[in-house]
Amino acid sequence: MTDPFVVIGGDAAGMSAASKAKREDPDRDVLVFEKGKWVSYAACGMPYYIKGEVDELDNLVAVTPEEFREQRDVDLRTGHEVVAIDPDAKTVTVEADDERFEQSYGDLLIGTGARAIEPPFDGIDLEGVFTLRSMDEAEAIEDYVDTNGPATAAIVGGGYVGVEMAEALTERGVEVSIFEMLPQTLQPFGEETAAVVEDHLREQGVDLHLETAVQGFAGRDHVESVELEDDSVSADLVIVGVGVAPNVELAEEAGIKLGPTGAIATDEYGRTNLEDVYAAGDCAEATNVVTGEPDHVPLALTANRAGRAIGTTVAGEPTKTGGTAGTAIVKAFELGAARTGVIDSERAREAGFDPVSVTIDAETRPHYYPGATELTVTLVADRESERVLGASLVGREGAKRIDTVATAVDAGLTVEELQNLDLAYAPPFSPVWDPILTAAKVLQGKLE
Amino acid sequence: MTDPFVVIGGDAAGMSAASKAKREDPDRDVLVFEKGKWVSYAACGMPYYIKGEVDELDNLVAVTPEEFREQRDVDLRTGHEVVAIDPDAKTVTVEADDERFEQSYGDLLIGTGARAIEPPFDGIDLEGVFTLRSMDEAEAIEDYVDTNGPATAAIVGGGYVGVEMAEALTERGVEVSIFEMLPQTLQPFGEETAAVVEDHLREQGVDLHLETAVQGFAGRDHVESVELEDDSVSADLVIVGVGVAPNVELAEEAGIKLGPTGAIATDEYGRTNLEDVYAAGDCAEATNVVTGEPDHVPLALTANRAGRAIGTTVAGEPTKTGGTAGTAIVKAFELGAARTGVIDSERAREAGFDPVSVTIDAETRPHYYPGATELTVTLVADRESERVLGASLVGREGAKRIDTVATAVDAGLTVEELQNLDLAYAPPFSPVWDPILTAAKVLQGKLE
Repeated sequence: MTDPFVVIGGDAAGMSAASKAKREDPDRDVLVFEKGKWVSYAACGMPYYIKGEVDELDNLVAVTPEEFREQRDVDLRTGHEVVAIDPDAKTVTVEADDERFEQSYGDLLIGTGARAIEPPFDGIDLEGVFTLRSMDEAEAIEDYVDTNGPATAAIVGGGYVGVEMAEALTERGVEVSIFEMLPQTLQPFGEETAAVVEDHLREQGVDLHLETAVQGFAGRDHVESVELEDDSVSADLVIVGVGVAPNVELAEEAGIKLGPTGAIATDEYGRTNLEDVYAAGDCAEATNVVTGEPDHVPLALTANRAGRAIGTTVAGEPTKTGGTAGTAIVKAFELGAARTGVIDSERAREAGFDPVSVTIDAETRPHYYPGATELTVTLVADRESERVLGASLVGREGAKRIDTVATAVDAGLTVEELQNLDLAYAPPFSPVWDPILTAAKVLQGKLE
Repeated sequence: MTDPFVVIGGDAAGMSAASKAKREDPDRDVLVFEKGKWVSYAACGMPYYIKGEVDELDNLVAVTPEEFREQRDVDLRTGHEVVAIDPDAKTVTVEADDERFEQSYGDLLIGTGARAIEPPFDGIDLEGVFTLRSMDEAEAIEDYVDTNGPATAAIVGGGYVGVEMAEALTERGVEVSIFEMLPQTLQPFGEETAAVVEDHLREQGVDLHLETAVQGFAGRDHVESVELEDDSVSADLVIVGVGVAPNVELAEEAGIKLGPTGAIATDEYGRTNLEDVYAAGDCAEATNVVTGEPDHVPLALTANRAGRAIGTTVAGEPTKTGGTAGTAIVKAFELGAARTGVIDSERAREAGFDPVSVTIDAETRPHYYPGATELTVTLVADRESERVLGASLVGREGAKRIDTVATAVDAGLTVEELQNLDLAYAPPFSPVWDPILTAAKVLQGKLE
């Protein structure tokens, strides 16, 4: 009998792989070791729990541990941490509360995820200073808001977490300041989209400090202020959301190679350099569909899809994990902002492109139809090949239209091909020329 | 000096071509002959005028005749009908109220549009029986509703016009019945989507008569009933919306060839078989991007795009008109329904495909996020090539997601490629697996 399929980490990649492998090959043992207590949870839903739109943290759990065990027949061990991998013996060393043992594997998936980066700020260990990466942290923030009723909150970092938490905490009646070192929020979305978001954040009462380096936090029993170089800003609560780092230490110690991004290098099937050892999710790289180069995009769909593919592969049918276009979408109060592909000029040039870009404002419906709102679309293409490289957009409705460009980018369409797409039109849904088509028309004009 | 660019018909195709040609080649004379008084109007907005959401019919006019004349320098002649084309002399014969003259052309665009089909029903000329194709008809219906306050309305035909007018008239307090000869409404959308729409129409109080042939209309001064084979249904107002026929008579008389659909045959630049004579819009064919065959899809975007391309071509830069995927979207009360590509099995087989199809129900957002609603997605692919052929979907939100499939269809993606697209996910916008991806996963399973 084949040795079991062992999965390290019980979130999106790990549980997708475990479930799929067991479904495709029911005779094989599938074990998942998860060091925490939560599995298969929607981390992206946590801000909405804190906001109060999701009643119970448990609602964010897609499949419970019991369901995995009983309905899917996956041997899921929560509270079990894998502390070492021995690729020669094909075993992992597992530690739990009251035991430590070796587990042999036939195939191994590393799905250890990523962790919030915690810069060495003074006072980062003060009570009231949080990162938001795990369900336990979400619970702790929610408790802290409930118990302490903070009047002010400081969010360090103007990325997804920062923007989503600004909305959540404002809704909870907290006055929010965001501190971002860069000249813009939402860096991967480009400056045009970020500018629209920033105006809106300010309209919503968020105090935005761009190009502002936080030195640390001060307070006696708990945090009371954010310390800047020459200022101190009151903050009864601090969320540090400055990015994530892949959890690669366990893999590295076992001799697994990392890629240029610092995450685990994988091939198109999610295989690492060690035989029968796979990696997927936020700890691993994926291939960028625009550049063809390894990329690190720690987002849920990539993790789920790669896990599912690896589950299929280890069950006997080799399946590619699929690439990433770096597609992302974020809600900022009343706005939706989205991006896909390569939109940063410098990054495009590094990948060998000569980027040309336009930004247009277009209505989401005809002017005469009620409820039309403005969508700001930035579209980027390569000058010579005229291939669409990426896009970013923002508006009160229609942010999911990014999927059209995500599809075009993945299919390698040119701007002319994008412009000629037969997109859906009727007055309640779109103007005759969808904003994406309008952007393509304008960009085409610039390419000629 | 080059002879003028002459355009027959002042709506989407014609005015797009005229404007573009003049912009690209300002020295050339551009003449448009429009037999009516309205130009460049959004016919798709007319139901919303009757519904009361659009205050003035004039709001549906994108660019006024004065703007065309004064700002765009287009010699627009409303109330002028072209009654003959002489391709040898390169002239057209124009009739107006008080004159009849020959106009020479260097290039000619036929943009004569389509007309509502009026079956030879008894009583079709009764007062209170309308088709809805022109602005004058929209005005007449609105006046009739205002003046007569009909209690009941019968809509003959369950296509776009029928469904949209059912919503509009219900909103105006009229009790609506729809009579459709086929076993389903919205035939191009497939039966799965239609079934969802039909349930919803009934919920909204619409009396739906499927597989029901109307014999005619009866009434004394004005229409009072719809006559069926063995029944008579009260109707103070009748809208006949059983489809459109391309206006090709003028072209045919001049020796211009029609294609297999009965509309004017064109090449990829919109050229007819006669030198320097183009056709575009609802009177002309376009190439279906799935089948590669001529198709007749009388919709606004195709007309606008083809017109614009022909305007560019006659100004000296040959530009393809683009194909059609037959993408369409329609609002039916609270629902949006959309379709793209080839979804009808018989039509797929005629085009040489072996269609495989799935229909799934998926939520538009994660279960835990407020406001998630169900989207029913039908996805069709070819068994051997696994190429995506088309899709149809319906739900309370998210119908514009059809654009993702429209893009995939145009790009010739396989189901696996569709399934691997990096579409945007965040809880306020989508589940991790967008409904399109879920449909692709299920269809992939069926193909294996």
